[in-house]
Amino acid sequence: MSEFRQDPTTKEWIIVASHRAKRPHDFINKQHEPDIPSYEAKCPFCSGNEYLSPNEIFRYPADGNSSWRVRVVTNKYPVLVLNGGTQHREESDFFNKMSGIGVHDVIIETPVHNRFIYLMTDDEVSELLAVYRERYRQLSTDARIKLIIIFKNHGKTAGTSLVHPHSQLVATPIVPAENNRQFEVAIDYRNDTGRCLYYDIIDHELKFKERVVIDTNEFIVFHPFASRVPFETWIMPKNGLASFGNISMPDLVNLAPVLKMTLQKLHIALANPDFNYAIHTAPVGDEDKDYYSWYIRIVPRLTSIAGFEIGSGMYINTALPEETAEFIRNT
Amino acid sequence: MSEFRQDPTTKEWIIVASHRAKRPHDFINKQHEPDIPSYEAKCPFCSGNEYLSPNEIFRYPADGNSSWRVRVVTNKYPVLVLNGGTQHREESDFFNKMSGIGVHDVIIETPVHNRFIYLMTDDEVSELLAVYRERYRQLSTDARIKLIIIFKNHGKTAGTSLVHPHSQLVATPIVPAENNRQFEVAIDYRNDTGRCLYYDIIDHELKFKERVVIDTNEFIVFHPFASRVPFETWIMPKNGLASFGNISMPDLVNLAPVLKMTLQKLHIALANPDFNYAIHTAPVGDEDKDYYSWYIRIVPRLTSIAGFEIGSGMYINTALPEETAEFIRNT
Repeated sequence: MSEFRQDPTTKEWIIVASHRAKRPHDFINKQHEPDIPSYEAKCPFCSGNEYLSPNEIFRYPADGNSSWRVRVVTNKYPVLVLNGGTQHREESDFFNKMSGIGVHDVIIETPVHNRFIYLMTDDEVSELLAVYRERYRQLSTDARIKLIIIFKNHGKTAGTSLVHPHSQLVATPIVPAENNRQFEVAIDYRNDTGRCLYYDIIDHELKFKERVVIDTNEFIVFHPFASRVPFETWIMPKNGLASFGNISMPDLVNLAPVLKMTLQKLHIALANPDFNYAIHTAPVGDEDKDYYSWYIRIVPRLTSIAGFEIGSGMYINTALPEETAEFIRNT
Repeated sequence: MSEFRQDPTTKEWIIVASHRAKRPHDFINKQHEPDIPSYEAKCPFCSGNEYLSPNEIFRYPADGNSSWRVRVVTNKYPVLVLNGGTQHREESDFFNKMSGIGVHDVIIETPVHNRFIYLMTDDEVSELLAVYRERYRQLSTDARIKLIIIFKNHGKTAGTSLVHPHSQLVATPIVPAENNRQFEVAIDYRNDTGRCLYYDIIDHELKFKERVVIDTNEFIVFHPFASRVPFETWIMPKNGLASFGNISMPDLVNLAPVLKMTLQKLHIALANPDFNYAIHTAPVGDEDKDYYSWYIRIVPRLTSIAGFEIGSGMYINTALPEETAEFIRNT
C-alpha cells in the first residue's frame, strides 16, 4: 500500500509508492563513467585558460602573488543582468512582465578540472563556502535583489554543459512563488506555535533517527519525511540561522566536512549519480528573522517526472526515505 | 535582454531567456526513430494479448460481438488503490500522512500497437475522448475522490515504459497544492472582476493572435504567454466549462480533430518529440462553477530542469512562445 505524506515546509503532499518501491541499490548508476583528466586544454575554467572566462568578478585569494583557488565570473550566457529598474510592464493591459534584472554568476570551485567537492580537502571546501557567503553579502546590499539562490549542477541529466567543478548563483528581483510559499508556511507556524518550524523538524528527525544520515554538533543531514525524489537529502544547521549570508566562519569550517562527506557518501553509494543542490535561504532583508532556517537541498537525478506530476505538481517517490537513509548511513 | 513573465493562472513568474533563446528549429528531434510495428507479441495492450492486462474495468464498444476499440484496465502497479478511508494519520505527533487511497487506470487507446492519436481517424479520437469522459463520470460519484487527472506520457523522456498508445487516469482524495492554487487564483479573479480568468485569457490571446496556433468555433490552441517550457501548448474550449466531465458529445466530436491536429503539428514540426499532456479540470463537486475552465496542457520534453529550477521552482524558458507558435502555425 502506498501512502500520502505531507511536506511540513510547503504543505504539499507527495505519494510514496512503497509497494512499487525500488530498493536503494536499484538506483546505483550502471553507466561506465569515463576518467576525467586534471586539465583540459579547451576548458574555460581550467588554470591557465582564464582568458576563456574573462568577466572575472573576483578571485580567492585576491593577492596577485599566489594562484587562485576559487574564481567568480559572470555567466557567459546570463539569464539575468543587473541593468535597469524593476518596474512592471504590461502587454495589452492584461499580461504582466518585467525586464530580466538580476545577477548570474559562475563560481569556479577549483582550478583543477577533476577536483570535485568530494575529492577536495576540508580547507578547500571551506574556501568555496566562504566565497558563496562573500558573494551573497556583496549582492544583498543591492536594493533590487530580493532572493539569492546558490546552486550546483553535477552531471548531464542535472543540466551541466561543462564538466569542470562549478556552482552558480542567480539573484532575482522577485521572490519566486515556491520559495515564498515556504516562507509563508514558516511565518504561519511561528505565529501559531511560537516556535520555528525548522527547529521542530530537526527535533523530530533526531528523535525518530531513521532518516538521519549524519549528525554532528552543528549540523544534521537527513532524507526528509516527504522526500520528492529518491535520495533527496537536506543539510541543516542546528542553530536555526535564517540566512546562509549570516553563517559564521566557524560554522563554514564545520559545514565543509559535512557537505563533503554527504556528497562523498552519495558518490560512493550510487556510483557518481548526477545531482543538483541549492541553498535555500531567507529573502534579502529577512536575514535576522527567526521563522526560517537556511539549508542545502541535494536532489539526485535518478528518476524523471511524467504526466501525473505535470498535471498535478504532486511527486511520486518510488523509494522510502527511511530505507535510502539507512543505505547511505551504512556507506 | 531576458524578461520575467507572470503566469496569470498561478501568479508564478517565469524567465524567458530570449537573448540566449534558441530558434524553434533548434528543438527538432535529431534521433533516428525506429519503425514501430502494428503488433508486438509481448505487448500487454495489443489485440489478442488481453490476458496480459487482465484487470479490465470496461471496454468500448461494450458488446461482445465486435472487437474493442478502447479498453480501460487497472494499472498493474497502481500508485493509489481505492480501498479504505481518508483519515489522516500521524507519525510522532508531527508529520502528517494518509493511506494511498485513489484510482490508477490505464486507458488503452487502440488495439493497434503503432496507432498514435495523430494517426487515428477523427472518430477514433472522439471515442477515446468519450472514454475519458465516461471514466471521469464514473469516478466522480465516489465521495472520497476530489480530483481526477487524465494524462498521457509519449516517449521515453516523458516517462513511458510501453510504446503502445495509452493514457492514464489518477483520481486522488486530496486536491494537489498546485491545482489548488490555480483554483484559488481563479476564484479571486472572479470575485475581483466578475469575470472568468480563463475567458479573459482566451480573449487576450485572440486579440493578440501571435501565440495562437489553431482557432475554431469551439476551441483555441495557443502557446501561453508565460510558457514554462518551449512549445508548451494549451487547448481550451471557448464555452468556459469548468469540468472536462461535463463536456457535451458534440464538443467531444469537435475536440477530436483539434487534439489530433495539434499533436500532428507537433509531431511533424519537431520530428516526433516526447511529450506529456494532462487535462486540467475543476475539482470534483465544482463541475458547475463558473470560475474555472478545463484545458489540455501539452508539455513537449525538449529541455530539462537544473539547479535553479530545483532551488526556486521558477522556470527558465529558452524559447519565445510567439516564435514557437508561429513555427507550429506554419507547419
